[in-house]
Order: sequence, then structure tokens, then C-alpha cells
Amino acid sequence: MVRLTDADSVGLVEPRVAHFDQPFTLQCRETLPRFDLTYETYGELNADKSNAVLVCHALSGDHHAAGYHAPEDAKPGWWDVCIGPGKPIDTSKFCVIALNNLGGCNGSTGPRTIDPDTGEPYGANFPTVTVKDWVKSQAMLADTLGIDRFAGVVGGSLGGMQALQWAIDLPDRIEHALVIAGAAKLSAQNIAFNEIARQAIQSDPEFHDGRYYQADAVPRRGLMLARMVGHVTYLSDDSMGVRFGRELKSGDIESGQDVQFQVESYLHYQGTSFSERFDANTYLLMTRALDYFDPALEFDGDLVRALRDVTAKFLVLSFSSDWRFPPARSDEIVDALIEARKDVVSATIEAPNGHDSFLLPNARYFDVLGGYLDAVARSRG
Amino acid sequence: MVRLTDADSVGLVEPRVAHFDQPFTLQCRETLPRFDLTYETYGELNADKSNAVLVCHALSGDHHAAGYHAPEDAKPGWWDVCIGPGKPIDTSKFCVIALNNLGGCNGSTGPRTIDPDTGEPYGANFPTVTVKDWVKSQAMLADTLGIDRFAGVVGGSLGGMQALQWAIDLPDRIEHALVIAGAAKLSAQNIAFNEIARQAIQSDPEFHDGRYYQADAVPRRGLMLARMVGHVTYLSDDSMGVRFGRELKSGDIESGQDVQFQVESYLHYQGTSFSERFDANTYLLMTRALDYFDPALEFDGDLVRALRDVTAKFLVLSFSSDWRFPPARSDEIVDALIEARKDVVSATIEAPNGHDSFLLPNARYFDVLGGYLDAVARSRG
Repeated sequence: MVRLTDADSVGLVEPRVAHFDQPFTLQCRETLPRFDLTYETYGELNADKSNAVLVCHALSGDHHAAGYHAPEDAKPGWWDVCIGPGKPIDTSKFCVIALNNLGGCNGSTGPRTIDPDTGEPYGANFPTVTVKDWVKSQAMLADTLGIDRFAGVVGGSLGGMQALQWAIDLPDRIEHALVIAGAAKLSAQNIAFNEIARQAIQSDPEFHDGRYYQADAVPRRGLMLARMVGHVTYLSDDSMGVRFGRELKSGDIESGQDVQFQVESYLHYQGTSFSERFDANTYLLMTRALDYFDPALEFDGDLVRALRDVTAKFLVLSFSSDWRFPPARSDEIVDALIEARKDVVSATIEAPNGHDSFLLPNARYFDVLGGYLDAVARSRG
Repeated sequence: MVRLTDADSVGLVEPRVAHFDQPFTLQCRETLPRFDLTYETYGELNADKSNAVLVCHALSGDHHAAGYHAPEDAKPGWWDVCIGPGKPIDTSKFCVIALNNLGGCNGSTGPRTIDPDTGEPYGANFPTVTVKDWVKSQAMLADTLGIDRFAGVVGGSLGGMQALQWAIDLPDRIEHALVIAGAAKLSAQNIAFNEIARQAIQSDPEFHDGRYYQADAVPRRGLMLARMVGHVTYLSDDSMGVRFGRELKSGDIESGQDVQFQVESYLHYQGTSFSERFDANTYLLMTRALDYFDPALEFDGDLVRALRDVTAKFLVLSFSSDWRFPPARSDEIVDALIEARKDVVSATIEAPNGHDSFLLPNARYFDVLGGYLDAVARSRG
């Protein structure tokens, strides 16, 4: 149930769309003739527009980060635990901007958009999009809102990677980069899991080489499998054990019935509901952006050199049970920042829920994140 | 190339088939009217038949554990590094028996076998098989060979679980149980990965509800995905990093070409070659046997009680980088054995290759395993 009267909720929110009627050339050298970005804002922009915080979403997120679209909504936005008046990202102090990234499937230009050259949806022909492209397009959105410089850019997982890329690509436009449960680049194992997810989607006969919209089909099984793989890697072995253990959903082997464990039933549910709401081509594109992310690459693989011109101060957070992007991956960012003589605060939060911990309430997590941003707000008076 | 002249190879070997023309009732209460087990032996059985060692295979293994079937074979059996004259499982001291388990796809009765009731392959109707069923059928194989009591039962992963079940179910017939990279039961995360593999197979349209033989089809994509998921969990993040890193196989994002990382290409190759050689229904059945394995279940979940009547001595080995069945899972077995006042030697081997380490050469692994078995051989004079 929506609790619009809750003092710490941003309440009812409405997405807006920014139109960009100019060609946008991507890192892959392809050009979109125009594009839209769907976004939401929470809190008031101050007079000198110096209190804006950009929230970047992860693999399957979108612009709806906090609040409710309608009183009957069952759930608020994906990061509602962190965004609101008095919450760690405090909307009584900051004006928060959250968008659906380019290539997304929830209002921004993406594979479902009609390609003006063909009159058909882009589908799998939507150009490759990178984290650099997102930063560039996010800066264009900031321009339309009159924001020269973000007080902070914040995100978890792939969202944190955008914050890091912001600090590198647009040092004059970001004061603080908050990188949560991130990494400076994916490991071979990370890429491998993403590739399994992609193969699951692409091998679904309903995928039709990405032209499933035209075929009036949906590669539901592939998306379900992709989400199941993702989901297992977001949780920790321990948290799954505590939550499901080896509890049976149904069946009994001694009586010859098929046994189904609770964890199987849970994964089916998660996978199926995801396949109802997410676009397969966007999933492929977002996992590719994750795999490609490697800001040190243009600096001969030297992250310290990549950080040379950074002026933003950093908060780098990781979670003890996160095995997708474990604390050691955050440490790599912290170590490079220190070696580059940048300003960095870091913490590893003891939390049992694996990579998903960045989306869940946790006292120390909220204290550190909220405390850092509170200091940012106070420093600007 | 086959090196049949290698002094430590068992050389050319030939599979044999044991026929059991009697009904065999499984734990699920279904009955097979008759069944075959395909097996190989390496080394000589001594006069009093007291030097037999049973090698149990894991998920995708079979009876071909050592040596070569033909001089032109590209590879020897799956555990050739461990089995041979002078190797840790020393065939100059022991007579090693390796079989393809019931439900397998390499000669033993399984889903591909014709069901005498229908005249068609069992397919997905092959009854549920458990580790207990395997132990029972392996004992029947021992009977045909005149072996009352194994000097040792040894296996890695699911193979080690069979060794543990042997010690519990048939205490009079096993002197030593060697449990390598095993666990007393699967965790929710383990089950989740297996379920993803099953869903991948079952959702392949070529699966035809398990009747793909009749449809002259093979669910290759599903098997490929299943193997890819399995493979990533067998390796460690570090070992994948060392082996593949983020090396590109092809492509360049700046020139708009699709990028393929080496690790993706490797996984495709592994998945595809597996799908050429393995049976999908067997994969489903074997992963189910893994999930169901829980010898403590009939003792109210109390592993110590389950071990009460055990007389076998144990060697329990785990590998430092194994995150599928990490050392802590072996420790659970060791702790229960100690509490049950049984004889147990255990070690965690420092090894970089994850769960796969049990199949790879490693000096300390071989020293511990070989040393333990050497003491077994010496104790019997």
C-alpha cells in the first residue's frame, strides 16, 4: 500500500521526457538523429542550481527511483529506501534527478523506438551504447535543466560505474562521485555470467534475431533464464540459505512426486515477472555496456592515469557478502584514487544480502551514505 | 597423442557391461525390470579381493576414468591424472573399478534405454535416481565381481557424495571413504544454479518434453547453456581472470564491431562440445540427484546421527578456491565425523582452479591423496 502521508516519502511523482532534436554520435561512431530521455526529479532545485544529485540506474533500473506514480501502486521506485526527505539521499536538501538511460525500455530512446531510417523499431540494430555515452547524454539532460555542475552523481553497481566515468570525463561538472558496489571493470567471471544471460535470450526462438516486436513475440523464456542467472549472482549463498535453505515447495521423493525446492519456485517467480516487464534487446545492450566498461582502457589500462584530471571527491562503498562486485573490486578504485592523490572516503558495509545489499536498508550503510551527503550539503551552507 | 608407453598410464582399456536381469526398486518406489552398468577396471584384483577401489563419477562423468580406448584417442579418461601405476590412486597396488552410473548416457541403463513397457526410450520418464540408488546398484556390481568389501570408495564432487553415502548405507562393505570437494548436502545457491541449468534444457523447443529422441531432435542450445552455467561455477574468479582476463577474441567498439571477449568464446566452445556428447535427460536426472542428496534427512537432519553406524575411515579433501563446494562444506562433514567419534583425516588444498581443482594436477593434493592410499595399501601388507 502506498503511504503517501509518510513524512519520508517523496510521494506522488510524474515522469517527464526531455527531447533532444539533434544528432548524437555514440562511442561506436553510429549516430542517433534524435533521442528522448525520461526522467523524474525529487526535491527542489535551489536558486543557484548547486544542489542537484544525479542518480544513475543499474542493469534493470529506470527513472522511477523513488515515490509512487499512483496511490494504488504496490511498490515505490527502486531506490525509495535511500531517496526522500530525511533519507540518506535527502530530498529536503538535494534536488535528485533520476533518468532512464539511453537504450532503456521505459520511456527513453531504445530498441523499442522507431528507427526513422526504416520506420521499424531499432530492435537488435540499436547501436552499442557505453557508459561514456550515458555520461554524455546525462550531461545534455543536465543542460536542459540548467544544471552546470552536480553536487553529486551516485549509483550502485552499473550506476556506480557511471559515477566513476562522470568524474573522469566531465571533471568540471561533478563535485562528488558516490560509487556503490561497483568495480573499475568487470572480471572474466562477471563477463561470463552476462554472456550466459545473453545466450539465453538470443537462443530463445521467440527472439527472432531481435525483431520480436515485428513478429509479435516476446522471448520470455530467455529473459526469465537471464534474470535467474542474474538473480543468483546478486544474492549471497548465506542469504539464500537463510531465506530458503532446502525447504521444499512441493513433492516428496519417497512417494515418487517431483520435488520442488522453495528456492526454485522463488527464482521462477522472479524470472517470470521480470520477463513481463523488461525488454530483451535492452537487457542485451545493458549487459554489453557493463562488459565494455573499462575507463582505464584509453589510458593504457592505467586507472591511476585515467583519474589524473579528476577533481570530484569520492565515496566508495562495498558490501561484505557481495561476490559479484566484492569489496576487493572497490578497493582497486580506492587504491587508484589514493595513488592519484584524490580525495576518497571508503567503507565496506557488513551486510548479508550480497550485491543486492545496495538496494536494502542497513543502518551503517545509511549512516555512511547519509553522513557523507549531509556533509556535502553543510559545506555549501 | 596417446602415450601408451608412459609408465604411469593404465594404457588401453576396454569397457565391460554387467547385466542385471532382476527388478531393481529405486528410492522413488519405481522399479526397473532390469538394468545394465558399464564399467572399466584398472589394475589387478588380488587373491582375496581386498584391494578394490571404487571410483564414483560426478555430474558429467562416466566409466572411462583412466587410460585410452584407442591409440588415436586425443584424451585419456577423465581422472587419468589420478589413476595409474605410481599415481595417487595407484593401479600397481589397487584394482580400480569405475562405472557409468544408473541413469547415465554412456552405456549404462538410462533415459536413452528402451523402456520394455513401451518399446520407446525412457526419455524424461526415466525414474528419479538418487545417490542411495547408485550406492545400491554399485554394490550389486561389486557382487558380480566378487568384491565383498571395497578398500576404498573415492570420488570428487557428486562422486564424493557417493563415497559418503556408501559409508552410511553399507558400513560393512567399505573400509575407507575418500570424499573430495564434496558437501553433505547442497545449499540453496547450489540448487539455484542447477535449476537454471534444468530450465535452460527444458525450455529449449528441441527438448520436446524429453521425447527428443523420437522427434529426432537434440536440445543443443539448452545443454550448451546448462554447461556454460556449470562451467562458470566450476572455475574460480581468479583462475578465469588469469586465463582470460578481459582479452578480446575479436571486435573493437570504437570501430563499431561487436566485441567478443576470450572468455565468451571459451564458454561457447565448452558448451557446444558438451552438447554434442551428453544427453539432456541424463543431465536433468544427475542434477536432481545432486539436489536431493541429503543423507542426514532420514535422521531428522542430524548428520552426526546419520554417521553413527559408520565404520569406514575418512579422508576429506577440499580446495581453497572452490566456491561451489567450498572448504566450509567439507568442514561440516569433518566436524560431524569428529562428533560421531569416527576416524577422519582432512585437508584443504591451496589450489587456484576452483571446483575443477579436483581434476587437475597439484603436488600437495597428490601427496595427501596418494599418501593416504599408500598407507591403506601398506596396512593390508
